[in-house]
Amino acid sequence: MKALVYHGPGNKAWEDVPDPRILQPTDVILQIDTTTICGTDLHILKGDVPAVTEGRILGHEGVGTVIEVGAAVRTIAIGDRVIISCISACGACSYCHAGLYAHCLADEGASGIGWIFGHLIDGTQAEYVRVPFADNSLYRVPDGVQDEAAVMLSDIIPTSFEIGVRYGQVKPGDTIAVVGSGPIGLAAMMTSHLYGAARVIALDLDANRLDQARSFGATDTVDSGAPDWKEQVLAMTDGLGVDVAIEAVGIPATFEACTQIVRPGGRVANVGVHGAPAQLALDELWIKDIAITMGLVSTNSTPMLLRLVAQHRLAAEKFGTHHFTLDQILDAYETFGNAAETKALKVVIRR
Amino acid sequence: MKALVYHGPGNKAWEDVPDPRILQPTDVILQIDTTTICGTDLHILKGDVPAVTEGRILGHEGVGTVIEVGAAVRTIAIGDRVIISCISACGACSYCHAGLYAHCLADEGASGIGWIFGHLIDGTQAEYVRVPFADNSLYRVPDGVQDEAAVMLSDIIPTSFEIGVRYGQVKPGDTIAVVGSGPIGLAAMMTSHLYGAARVIALDLDANRLDQARSFGATDTVDSGAPDWKEQVLAMTDGLGVDVAIEAVGIPATFEACTQIVRPGGRVANVGVHGAPAQLALDELWIKDIAITMGLVSTNSTPMLLRLVAQHRLAAEKFGTHHFTLDQILDAYETFGNAAETKALKVVIRR
Repeated sequence: MKALVYHGPGNKAWEDVPDPRILQPTDVILQIDTTTICGTDLHILKGDVPAVTEGRILGHEGVGTVIEVGAAVRTIAIGDRVIISCISACGACSYCHAGLYAHCLADEGASGIGWIFGHLIDGTQAEYVRVPFADNSLYRVPDGVQDEAAVMLSDIIPTSFEIGVRYGQVKPGDTIAVVGSGPIGLAAMMTSHLYGAARVIALDLDANRLDQARSFGATDTVDSGAPDWKEQVLAMTDGLGVDVAIEAVGIPATFEACTQIVRPGGRVANVGVHGAPAQLALDELWIKDIAITMGLVSTNSTPMLLRLVAQHRLAAEKFGTHHFTLDQILDAYETFGNAAETKALKVVIRR
Repeated sequence: MKALVYHGPGNKAWEDVPDPRILQPTDVILQIDTTTICGTDLHILKGDVPAVTEGRILGHEGVGTVIEVGAAVRTIAIGDRVIISCISACGACSYCHAGLYAHCLADEGASGIGWIFGHLIDGTQAEYVRVPFADNSLYRVPDGVQDEAAVMLSDIIPTSFEIGVRYGQVKPGDTIAVVGSGPIGLAAMMTSHLYGAARVIALDLDANRLDQARSFGATDTVDSGAPDWKEQVLAMTDGLGVDVAIEAVGIPATFEACTQIVRPGGRVANVGVHGAPAQLALDELWIKDIAITMGLVSTNSTPMLLRLVAQHRLAAEKFGTHHFTLDQILDAYETFGNAAETKALKVVIRR
């Protein structure tokens, strides 16, 4: 088959590789029908994720059709059209029992478990993929839901919902700020309305992204490059700050910004993936009665989100701004990697 | 009357001052029957709390008898024996309605509100004290409860319970670590059992405090000066870390220690008062699905804790290790300030 293979920092190729095959009785093999690219894939290509070694097929998002099932698979059958969760989970350990699939304690070979696609095992930017623990890692897609919407439930929408909105405990009437208006931030704005957020303030340095934010549920926008960005947010919130500040970038400055605009009794939900420590101003914050949360998505919200998509209450397909076929995947990376110019949110890559 | 007056860093005196008087109709005047000293008072005396100005009467804990009531006071009468909460609250603002008395929005004169005794208004280390918003800041003491127990509900036990145990969401069967085994840490250990903590690991540099910890509910102790302190904790917790790590010191090292021993899905509850920022290793922690909480006590748990004390289910009196009279308060400071030698936990200072 053909697949997008990582060849060390800065190098990738769409090339011939062996077809995947069943290794464990809990595996299935899927034909990839639709995949996409994540900011994390760009980090990997820069060499920021050293656990990804040369020869690894990239990608952890996708919708596919089952073409082969292992002997122990019970709930998934050949021909099923399924969402591949970015998180693989055994379903039987203490963390899986608690719904914290991100921290599954099973061991897929010697590769660990949790986020492993395109990381510790071969991923979804390929014609076919092996899916471990298929009963716990795949979700059947209802007929009325298009691949273009379903693929957004592999990672981006559950991530923003679980780690941003749910950990942030957004509740009816809350004012929230989302620092960073890329795809993850936009998905947090969109899903914050599921819990009745009243005012959603989008922050970004990029005016185009702030424009897009309004169509994803932002009620207000603030240029985070403005010298008075913080005063602007405080002026919208009685001077006290927001109920929930969601970090959707992954750098110290945006995390620290969230801690500066949260009101006493509020919450900071970090969604970004960080490569460096941040400073926590405990000398100012200890007194504020705040909670700061962070985590890797468990995708336990995927079935619920999928129902909302099927009911047309969550316009997941809006994230797909550019379309390609699998053999154009290098062009797709170009478009996604230059989002500031191309205004790409998510690229949809079809068989 | 006589009172303990702050005269700038390093200076204090037990001296004659004017008697307090009613300033607002919601005030009462109390005769102080029992007071105590808090680590925060020592910080003030070092000059660490610049909001405390020369001439301020110190102290924010006490039990007293009502001798005068303002015209608007409804629930407190002359002769009542009451606990003075370290937090003053109006009862009518949005934060009070949410039970977050620490962030009361009313304005006591121009002094703000929340923690104001011995800080922004005159405090409880005196023969008499004015108590603002008396209906919302005093709790009547049942006959069977001695002052020596009741005074521990002014600050220390509610602080450890609300900010450590409750924010840490301790639940039945949890393994918790308390970093710092001074009075605040010991109160966290004691009250963690209210929620059914199964294993309570006390950490401290001081062997004497670790001994004391066992009588306050610690099931295990770890010398936090040992090079393998972290490995010792992980060995007690399947290698994954504790469910809840409670910080009870207030320095960056102990906060950072908590983030190193919390398991995926766990919680860090900071109780310590900090004077410097800490480093937050987001590059390691973002993936761990943890919550980090912090705050100032609201004392909304005082009525519940007082019921438990009255039922002899919470041995609050155990904290009182040394006893003085008000005119011996300078000796009491000596004893409390040299706790490493005197093994003092809380000093009980009686009229």
